[in-house]
Amino acid sequence: MVAYDDILAARDRLTGHALRTPLLDAPQIDAVAGRRVLVKAECLQRTGSFKFRGAWNRISALSPEERTRGVVASSSGNHAQGVALSCRILGIPAVIVMPSDAPSAKVDATRGYGAEILFYDRRTDDRDAISEALTAERGATLVRPFDDPFVIAGQGTCGLEIAEQARERGVEAGTMLVCCGGGGLSSGIALALEREAPDLRVRPVEPEGFDDFGRSLAAGERLRNAAGATSIQDAILTPSPGTLTFPVGQRLFGPGLAVSDDETLRAMGLAWMWLKIALEPGGAAALAAALFHGASLANGPVVVTASGGNVDPAMFARALETL
Amino acid sequence: MVAYDDILAARDRLTGHALRTPLLDAPQIDAVAGRRVLVKAECLQRTGSFKFRGAWNRISALSPEERTRGVVASSSGNHAQGVALSCRILGIPAVIVMPSDAPSAKVDATRGYGAEILFYDRRTDDRDAISEALTAERGATLVRPFDDPFVIAGQGTCGLEIAEQARERGVEAGTMLVCCGGGGLSSGIALALEREAPDLRVRPVEPEGFDDFGRSLAAGERLRNAAGATSIQDAILTPSPGTLTFPVGQRLFGPGLAVSDDETLRAMGLAWMWLKIALEPGGAAALAAALFHGASLANGPVVVTASGGNVDPAMFARALETL
Repeated sequence: MVAYDDILAARDRLTGHALRTPLLDAPQIDAVAGRRVLVKAECLQRTGSFKFRGAWNRISALSPEERTRGVVASSSGNHAQGVALSCRILGIPAVIVMPSDAPSAKVDATRGYGAEILFYDRRTDDRDAISEALTAERGATLVRPFDDPFVIAGQGTCGLEIAEQARERGVEAGTMLVCCGGGGLSSGIALALEREAPDLRVRPVEPEGFDDFGRSLAAGERLRNAAGATSIQDAILTPSPGTLTFPVGQRLFGPGLAVSDDETLRAMGLAWMWLKIALEPGGAAALAAALFHGASLANGPVVVTASGGNVDPAMFARALETL
Repeated sequence: MVAYDDILAARDRLTGHALRTPLLDAPQIDAVAGRRVLVKAECLQRTGSFKFRGAWNRISALSPEERTRGVVASSSGNHAQGVALSCRILGIPAVIVMPSDAPSAKVDATRGYGAEILFYDRRTDDRDAISEALTAERGATLVRPFDDPFVIAGQGTCGLEIAEQARERGVEAGTMLVCCGGGGLSSGIALALEREAPDLRVRPVEPEGFDDFGRSLAAGERLRNAAGATSIQDAILTPSPGTLTFPVGQRLFGPGLAVSDDETLRAMGLAWMWLKIALEPGGAAALAAALFHGASLANGPVVVTASGGNVDPAMFARALETL
C-alpha cells in the first residue's frame, strides 16, 4: 500500500526537478460550467504531463546497480516521456514499448529524450508480455505506468499542491475531477487529499467506452472494457483498473463519469481560449466533465486536473474549430 | 520616477489577486535556441497577459471617490482586459477605447468583463484625444497602458518573480528579453532586476517596422515609427517609447532587437508544442528573438517574457501550420 508519508518522501525527491504547476481559473470557464472551476495545469509539467512525477519518483529511487541495468516502460506516450526524460537526466538507458498508433508528437518527443522505442500492435500484441520479456532479457527494471507504489506516490505530489493551492483560493470542499486511465493519478491525489483536504472528493473521469474504473467501482470488482471501442483520448485508454489503484478508489473515490471525444475537443478549445494552455483529449476529460456534466455533480466548486498536453497539431486544430 | 519600493508595494497589492506565473523550460526549446531558455509564462496571468498586474496596481489604489467616477483606458486589447477585470472585481465602471481592428478575441473578452467599449480607427483617429475628452467629460481616471508609475510598478512585480524563479534554476546572469510596446513591462522588469538580479540585462524586443524603442535607445532620443508599417503583433504596436519608460530604458536596457511576424508565428508553434502554452504574436516576440536571433545575443542563458496569449483561433491555426 501507499501511505501518506510515501507521498511526502516523493515530494522531497521531486523538489527542484518537477515543476509546481499553477492552479488556473477564468470567469469565462466558470460561466460555461455554471460553477467555480479550478484547473491544475499539469500539461505545463516537464514532458507535458503529470507522468514525470511518478516516473522520476520511481527511477530516482533506483540503486546504482539497478540504474546500470536500465529501465523498461510500456506507454502510449506520456508515461514514456516521463520515463525517458528522467532516465536522460539520471544517465540511465531506457527502452519504451509503444503502440504503433501512438500520436507522432509523443513518439518524436520520447525519441528526442534519448529513449530506444519498440513498437507493438495495440489490437494483436500483448504489451505486458513484450515488456516483461524485455525486462527479463536485460535484467532491467520495469517501470509500470500506474500499478507501482512509487509511481502512485509520485502522482500524489500533485494532490499535495492542489490541496494547498485550492485552500489559498478559499476552496476546501467540493468535487475533485481527475482524468483517469489506470488510476495512478486519481489514487495518488485521493491519498494526498485524504489527509490535506478531506472534503475534496475525487471522482474519476474516463472516455465513453473506456469507463472500466467507474463501472468497476459500481460493481465492486475490477471489470474490463468491452473490445472494439475507439477514442481519441489515447492517454487514458486502459483495459481495467490497476490492482493497487482499485482498492484506493473503492475506499476514497466517488462515482466515475464518462465523457465523449467531442466534449474533450470542446474542452480543449475553451482551455486554449480562456486559460491559454494546450491540452490533449485525454488531458481534457476532467475539464469536459466539469463543463458539460454539471448535472451529475454535487453543488459547489470543482477542481479538475488538466493532466496532459501532448497532442498532434492536426488534432489540436480540430479543437480550435469547436470555438 | 518609479522606485524599487513602489514595486514592493505593488506586490503587496497584487498578492491574492494576480497569479504567480511559472517559469517554464523544455530541452527542445533549448535545442532550437542553442542555449538555455527560461520562459516566464505571463499568458497564464489573469486575462491572458501581464497587463492585469499594472491595471490592478493602479485601479486598486484609487480613492473611494475616484472609484465612483470610473475609469477610462485606451488599448488594443490586453490592457483593456486587465482594466476591465480589475474594475469588475472592484465594482468600478470602465470605458475602453479600442481600435476597430482589434482581434475579436480581445474585444469579446473585454466586453465579457463588463466594460463599455468605444471604437476608433487606428489610421485616422487620435486615440489619446478621444480618451482624454472622455475622461474630462466623465471626471473619470485615465489608466494609461504604460506611461504611469503605478502601471510600471505593477509590471515590475513580474521582474521580482523572474529574479527569484531564475535563481532557483541556477540562473543569475544572462539576457532578459522582453516583448516591448511602450516599454511598461520592460522598464518595470528592469527596475526590479536592477536590485534583485543585476546581471540579468533587459533587452527590448519589438516587431520589425515598429522598433521605435530600439532605435530611440540607439539615437539617444525618443523617435517615432514610420507610418504605413503593419504587423500581426498587435499587442506591441506603439508609436514611440513612453516619457517615463524611455529614461529607464536609457539607464538600464541593452540594445533592442526586432523580429518578423513569421518568426513570432514559428515561436508560437514551438511554445505550443513544447511548453503547452498559447501565445499571441506580440507575446511571442521575445521567444522568437531567443530562438532565431541567437547570433545577436551575448553567450549564456536567456530569460524571455511570454507576455500574452489573447489571439483569434484562425491566427493560432497559422502558427500550428509552421510545425
